[in-house]
Amino acid sequence: MLRKISFALIVALFAGVGFINASTVKNGEMESRILGVTKPYAVYLPDGYEYSGVEYPVLYLLHGASDTFRAWVDKGSVQAIADQEIRAGFALPMIIVMPDARGIELNNMGKNMGYFNMPDWPYEDFFFQEFIPFIEKTYRISKDKGSRAIAGLSMGGGGTTVYAMRHPEMFSSACPLSGLVGGFENMPQEGLWKDAAPHSPILILDNATPEQLDAIRSVRWYVDCGDDDFLLDGNIELLQKMREKKIPVQFRIRDGVHNWLYWQQSLHEVLKYISIGFAE
Amino acid sequence: MLRKISFALIVALFAGVGFINASTVKNGEMESRILGVTKPYAVYLPDGYEYSGVEYPVLYLLHGASDTFRAWVDKGSVQAIADQEIRAGFALPMIIVMPDARGIELNNMGKNMGYFNMPDWPYEDFFFQEFIPFIEKTYRISKDKGSRAIAGLSMGGGGTTVYAMRHPEMFSSACPLSGLVGGFENMPQEGLWKDAAPHSPILILDNATPEQLDAIRSVRWYVDCGDDDFLLDGNIELLQKMREKKIPVQFRIRDGVHNWLYWQQSLHEVLKYISIGFAE
Amino acid sequence: MLRKISFALIVALFAGVGFINASTVKNGEMESRILGVTKPYAVYLPDGYEYSGVEYPVLYLLHGASDTFRAWVDKGSVQAIADQEIRAGFALPMIIVMPDARGIELNNMGKNMGYFNMPDWPYEDFFFQEFIPFIEKTYRISKDKGSRAIAGLSMGGGGTTVYAMRHPEMFSSACPLSGLVGGFENMPQEGLWKDAAPHSPILILDNATPEQLDAIRSVRWYVDCGDDDFLLDGNIELLQKMREKKIPVQFRIRDGVHNWLYWQQSLHEVLKYISIGFAE
Amino acid sequence: MLRKISFALIVALFAGVGFINASTVKNGEMESRILGVTKPYAVYLPDGYEYSGVEYPVLYLLHGASDTFRAWVDKGSVQAIADQEIRAGFALPMIIVMPDARGIELNNMGKNMGYFNMPDWPYEDFFFQEFIPFIEKTYRISKDKGSRAIAGLSMGGGGTTVYAMRHPEMFSSACPLSGLVGGFENMPQEGLWKDAAPHSPILILDNATPEQLDAIRSVRWYVDCGDDDFLLDGNIELLQKMREKKIPVQFRIRDGVHNWLYWQQSLHEVLKYISIGFAE
Repeated sequence: MLRKISFALIVALFAGVGFINASTVKNGEMESRILGVTKPYAVYLPDGYEYSGVEYPVLYLLHGASDTFRAWVDKGSVQAIADQEIRAGFALPMIIVMPDARGIELNNMGKNMGYFNMPDWPYEDFFFQEFIPFIEKTYRISKDKGSRAIAGLSMGGGGTTVYAMRHPEMFSSACPLSGLVGGFENMPQEGLWKDAAPHSPILILDNATPEQLDAIRSVRWYVDCGDDDFLLDGNIELLQKMREKKIPVQFRIRDGVHNWLYWQQSLHEVLKYISIGFAE
Repeated sequence: MLRKISFALIVALFAGVGFINASTVKNGEMESRILGVTKPYAVYLPDGYEYSGVEYPVLYLLHGASDTFRAWVDKGSVQAIADQEIRAGFALPMIIVMPDARGIELNNMGKNMGYFNMPDWPYEDFFFQEFIPFIEKTYRISKDKGSRAIAGLSMGGGGTTVYAMRHPEMFSSACPLSGLVGGFENMPQEGLWKDAAPHSPILILDNATPEQLDAIRSVRWYVDCGDDDFLLDGNIELLQKMREKKIPVQFRIRDGVHNWLYWQQSLHEVLKYISIGFAE
Repeated sequence: MLRKISFALIVALFAGVGFINASTVKNGEMESRILGVTKPYAVYLPDGYEYSGVEYPVLYLLHGASDTFRAWVDKGSVQAIADQEIRAGFALPMIIVMPDARGIELNNMGKNMGYFNMPDWPYEDFFFQEFIPFIEKTYRISKDKGSRAIAGLSMGGGGTTVYAMRHPEMFSSACPLSGLVGGFENMPQEGLWKDAAPHSPILILDNATPEQLDAIRSVRWYVDCGDDDFLLDGNIELLQKMREKKIPVQFRIRDGVHNWLYWQQSLHEVLKYISIGFAE
Repeated sequence: MLRKISFALIVALFAGVGFINASTVKNGEMESRILGVTKPYAVYLPDGYEYSGVEYPVLYLLHGASDTFRAWVDKGSVQAIADQEIRAGFALPMIIVMPDARGIELNNMGKNMGYFNMPDWPYEDFFFQEFIPFIEKTYRISKDKGSRAIAGLSMGGGGTTVYAMRHPEMFSSACPLSGLVGGFENMPQEGLWKDAAPHSPILILDNATPEQLDAIRSVRWYVDCGDDDFLLDGNIELLQKMREKKIPVQFRIRDGVHNWLYWQQSLHEVLKYISIGFAE
């Protein structure tokens, strides 16, 4: 026991001299009238949030299918990664909000899971009409496009892409990671694949007016997918469509598959990239 | 349920075409006469191990204080990282063995914890006289210095360093990560600090004969510590002592603190580095 | 003057204690009966080559259009990069041979420039029937597929890909960088584009027999192109064709354009990747 | 010739659609009354500078001994690196100014070379009283500490460190790379070593008042040196002294020696790091 204490003491002492960030991650929840349920979320507040008094930029960070609002916290090391990049001076202090996209049954692959409007489950309406306003009222957040970014993995990469295409006035940067963003024609005609297909970013771009395309170009795009990810083809389809539509995009294919190892590495880059967007 | 199945099917199908490694990680245990207890360990067997028939090089990967033989598996993503680097062709297929250094009480900060010989607990004897021979008999391992590497974090970085200095004929590469390898004079005179101090790598080098130094130079050294790690000073002391003794060393200070985020990033580099050592 | 000397002395002293590799890069030339000209080349010999007596693996490293056999030396920092990775223990000591693909006029965009057989200029025949045998006779090189790799940039990435597809028994690894490897239908019908089109890797794969595809699969492929490179589309076409034909490939899209900054960064990875191939 | 044109056309066409930055690097010069000579410099102006009308942050980027104001341009790839990071959205558009620290004889190792005041050659006075004001009058530059950064290599790393310690109100970030910043007691008592010794950052910190230390802490520090650099010991001495004085510092030891390969890699990180400093 003594040993444990001495080890903890050393670390605490060390933290005390200011080398370690005192950021916090906590769970919250809000009543949604639109969905008719209470929705949980997690939020990362950077070191100094309590006493700084200033407004922060915000990243909405979306989880994937079969996961919950806790995924980036429990599996994605979001706190350690954000602490590291902010403390090192490679990312700006920011708030990171992790919403919940489980369906009505609150099991993690259940009915209506996802980020899109479904029958009796208008999640996208909830997100923009209730959730963002609630978050911006609850935390000290700069309330403008330039201070808002969105990122997400897999199904949440699809959400990221579609949200930023449909609401380009809301986000300065959008970063889908290993996203479900294309290639729908080769996917099973059931479950989440079927639900997501009508919300294909490819379709959105094909149907966009010149004005809408201009607005989509006002978002900074960072698209990242592993070379052995089973969603790679869809990401390439998105890249090709964006190039066809002359939408500037940062595109990366790094080594890896569809796993947290990959997304943790991506998150380092995302935090740097969106910080420059916040600063521009 | 259907949704879950379809998602799992896709991934399985995908795995089936060979894009994902079928490596395995399993727990094992051995009876130690020297310690008088049964000691557990974990082992990573690379994709193809079952049917290849060939002998593999081996990495002994040591955990830190307050952890167990499962730490690299459960917190360090060792399987995902090794799979990635091996599959990508940046590391050789290898076996990774993770021993257990908890003390006799089998709680993780208990009495006699660590890698050194203690009264009534000759762990170092166990490691070299019983554990390595057992492992080399149990798995298809190349039994020579050139095919053996050792790495570890924190207390396990100390173990790594001391083992490779006292048994340089055993390892081609040694990679202490955020290791407890120096700076003992500034540490508490109790607990693991006190236990480790007599096994300081600094003392070992100061007392080494020219022949011993030559042998230590035959090990490839890779020393890595975060710039905000509370063990940084000790790592710098080790670097300076190694330079004084003209022992070639790869030395890195990257951004970070004493956490798994750092060690996961290190492990990618360690696997690449020791692979070249295996090949030389 | 004194100052200059003292600075040089420090560096020399420093080099003298063994911290800096004494590799060499030199120019050579050979008489080609097949081409009817004398062809120059450059060669990197690793530290220790003179006295080691051992045979080394070899990398053939190809330049791009409008360049010469000196490009990787003078613009690509090949010596500094190879020295660094070999000395650090992240790449195996190897010989790097840089051939010359200028055409008969010996100006660098002249007639018959490139790596393919042209009327009266059977460069590919020269490369395999004269150049490789000459190099393997002139330097201490391991003469087997497992010890031979090929890489190149732009036009040389095309050469790399086609050589390894037509002569898969010759190379363990092939690494086209920003290669002219596809997308020919969208290119000008003149000059090097027209000359290269009949040698499209896409065509080669489409016309390959199952046996040829099997042989091509025996090569380790590493394909790398910048996200703003004007040859990106062709690289994606190659990726898609390789996936269609079930040829395993490491594929990377990093940040960058068609410049030496990109290729220098690539070369670090290439040296690591082919080293593991040499070791397997 | 036709081939050359077609290749150039492709690239130009490509540039025309906006994928390549149209930044400029040019030489300038100014009359110095303080030094009594005309001093040249080079300046990087980011894409859009001509028509944007906005003020930019500025990086002063210092060369090393035996080099000139052209070193970062001709050997350091400053334009390609800045273009890449700015275009990719990982660094803010900025102006980069490269002064000249050759001595009075204008040969590059001549008398009075360096960044410090010398008898009859008050270079530091020139730098702060004439050069910075001239630059800020000549170019559209934000004229405040928050928009000014300084970095440099070797002798210029020493200049960077000392300038930011003596004039901490001038710079938001200071980034010495492989700097001559410590270890003077082990250096030759002649030439640049002797000239630099009285300006040791170690001495400055040892002699600083608490108020001066506070001011020095207001600078963001990024110190980077290769593990095989002959100036490594001095960089470690600086690190230890900064830690003793509780000056927060980002510290890196990466693989490498005292060469441009290393500094080019550093520059990528420096541009990201100072951008966040500009934004804070």
